[in-house]
This record gives sequence, C-alpha cells and structure tokens, in this order.
Amino acid sequence: MVIGEVIGTVVATSKHELLVGSKILVVQVVTPDGSFVEGRQMVAVDTVGAGTGERVILTTGSNAAKACETDRVPVDAAIIGIIDNIDLN
Amino acid sequence: MVIGEVIGTVVATSKHELLVGSKILVVQVVTPDGSFVEGRQMVAVDTVGAGTGERVILTTGSNAAKACETDRVPVDAAIIGIIDNIDLN
Amino acid sequence: MVIGEVIGTVVATSKHELLVGSKILVVQVVTPDGSFVEGRQMVAVDTVGAGTGERVILTTGSNAAKACETDRVPVDAAIIGIIDNIDLN
Amino acid sequence: MVIGEVIGTVVATSKHELLVGSKILVVQVVTPDGSFVEGRQMVAVDTVGAGTGERVILTTGSNAAKACETDRVPVDAAIIGIIDNIDLN
Amino acid sequence: MVIGEVIGTVVATSKHELLVGSKILVVQVVTPDGSFVEGRQMVAVDTVGAGTGERVILTTGSNAAKACETDRVPVDAAIIGIIDNIDLN
Repeated sequence: MVIGEVIGTVVATSKHELLVGSKILVVQVVTPDGSFVEGRQMVAVDTVGAGTGERVILTTGSNAAKACETDRVPVDAAIIGIIDNIDLN
Repeated sequence: MVIGEVIGTVVATSKHELLVGSKILVVQVVTPDGSFVEGRQMVAVDTVGAGTGERVILTTGSNAAKACETDRVPVDAAIIGIIDNIDLN
Repeated sequence: MVIGEVIGTVVATSKHELLVGSKILVVQVVTPDGSFVEGRQMVAVDTVGAGTGERVILTTGSNAAKACETDRVPVDAAIIGIIDNIDLN
Repeated sequence: MVIGEVIGTVVATSKHELLVGSKILVVQVVTPDGSFVEGRQMVAVDTVGAGTGERVILTTGSNAAKACETDRVPVDAAIIGIIDNIDLN
Repeated sequence: MVIGEVIGTVVATSKHELLVGSKILVVQVVTPDGSFVEGRQMVAVDTVGAGTGERVILTTGSNAAKACETDRVPVDAAIIGIIDNIDLN
C-alpha cells in the first residue's frame, strides 16, 4: 500500500454499473513525512468515509476490489484506512 | 485508477479472438488539472462509449477484464467512466 | 496495454514446462508515434504470430496468461494483436 | 519481491474490518547493499514479526494477501521474511 | 517478463512457511544487450536451477506463483527460464 492524501472528487455520470453509488476520490501519493510525490496522483474508490485533506492507506491492484461491496467491481485502487498517525523511528 | 484523455484509436485486424469487436483506444494519462504526463500513453478497451478528447477513468491490471463482457479477455486496461468534472479542494 | 515493436527472440532451453513450444519475443515499448521508450524492453509470449519489426499490442500482468493455451502458464506479458494502424486525432 | 527496511508504524483506527489487528508497517525499499531507494516507501502488512531497522523481503501485488490469515484481505504488500544475510557474488 | 542476471542469494531464517526450502535469489534487471538497469534489483524464487551470473527470464506479479510447487505461495517474482541466447534483429 501507499500513503495518500485526498485532494479531490471525481464526478462521472457515465460509468460502469458496479461503480454507481461509489464515492470516487482523487488521491495524491505522499511520503511518510507528508510530502507530495510528483506525478503520482491516483483515482480511488473510498470504502472508509475519507474526506479531503485526510491521509489514507491506499491499496492498489486487483485486491482493491476486495475492499468493495462486491469484488466483481473493475477497480484497481481503494482507500482502506484513515491514518491517525505515522511513527517513524 | 488514473485519469486519461482519449487521443486515438488502434486498428488491429489480427488479434486475440476475445478482442474482436472491441473498441481499442489510445489513452494519454493526465494529471487532475489536465496536463499530459510524459511517457504515459496506454492502450485500453472502451466499455462506456468514450470518444476522442474526452477525459476518462482508466482502470489497469487484471481487474480491467471485469469491465468487459467476459472476464476471460486478456486485457490489462479498460475505460470505465467518462469524467464530467473533477473537484479539487 | 501498451504498444510495442518486436525486436528479437529469446532462446531458453531450460525453462518452465508450460513454456515449452511457446515463441518468446523481446519487445520494445514505443510511443503512439513509434518512438522507442528508453529502458522499457520486455519479454513476452507471442499468441498471434508476430514477427520482428511489427508493431503489436502487449498486455501485461496476470491476465496475459489468458491469451495462452492454458492460463496456468506463469507469464506476465503476451502479444495479443498486430497493429495495422494507429489513428491519432 | 524487493528488499526493504522497516522504518515505522502506521496507526489507523478507522480501517477495513479485515485489517483490524494487523500490524501495518512503513517500509523503505533498499538496494541489495542497503542503500535507500529514493521515493520508494511502502506500507505493508507484517506477517513474520518484523521490527524497526530490520531488513525484510517484501512481496507486492495481489499475492500479498496469500501471506495473511485470510486471502480476502484487500492488501497489496506484505512482509514475508526477515533477511539474515545477502550474499552478493 | 524481463531479462535478469542472477547476482546473489538471500538468506532468511524467519520466513513464510510456504517459502521454506525455496531458493531465493537477487536478480538484476538487464537490457537485451546485457547492461544493468539502474535501480532495478529484485528478489525472486528460483524454479529452474539458475546460478549466479546466468541470464534468466523473470516473471513478476501474481502469476509468478504458478511457477512454484503450489500457487498458494505469496511471491511476486519467479525465475522461469535460463537464457541461452537473445537474437536481436
């Protein structure tokens, strides 16, 4: 997984039927200390009620669908946690 | 997923039998504000009726097949939504 | 998927049993206008009878196996189409 | 897989139910001689009891779930070994 | 797949139970003409008896497990062939 920060929302009226009703967010990948990683913005399905500005755990690839109500959904990225804190040692 | 802009069409007479009849598009990955990301062009199956110049949601990896009529199709990228708007906060 | 150009052939006597008899090609990833993308050469199973110098559609990841005779084959890249033309708008 | 060094821990109260109870670590990808690879930090589930500063084997993609108690977990990275030594020839 | 050169061995006493007994190698990704690709070293399970200095075919992602004795193993990279020769045209 990677650490992301929610930076926006995608509005798409015409989309795959299994995505209807899903909240689709724009996520900026960040380093553990919160810096934006250039060129790494993704679009992800929200499964935990994340909001703009929150730091999240982003899972990618085919397992992202397992976080959704049905794993038949054709997504490759899902927000699976809201980060309270990162302890770097 | 990533945000893409449809920039062309691929014509391939000789192809895998499960791809016959599919519309195969060239998609340029773009940033949330619409800038082209250098070196990131992909070829994707269209599942939502996207046209040239439209911004789309592009899903990649093995789940892309789930957007097609049969998930036995050997594709790794599919257009699953047409973007109306992106709200960046 | 990505656009590739076939640039060579791999000879490997000792290989996984399910690869015996497969044609294994070296493919250079190219941009839609045909330029070589630096550092992106791949090795792929041919499923459509592609030859050196031809532009092809290359699918990657676990779905590549679906293009083969049996999807139990441990490959991550397959040529699934020979490109006649790319229309860029 | 890649070689990683554990550099921190992620605390996330709100997360996918199948992640509750899992230890989620921040891992820095390193070269075989131990140098940090710039921009490649990941978040992974620990399955072998790894601790901060240890070098680990990190598996990514959908197979990472196979290292967990149930493979229905929506993760894309797992620590599957603690490295004692790397012999470079 | 990519072309790799075996450059070392990983010793890990504490590891996932399905990896016990597997030979785990460090592989440097190389170009078709044998040049090392900077920053691309991987750790892979050997399934064909490859040794240090040999050029190999490396498959990545979830299909890598199909090359192993059981596909329940949580790996994302496997050596599936030893390269005798590459014919570049």
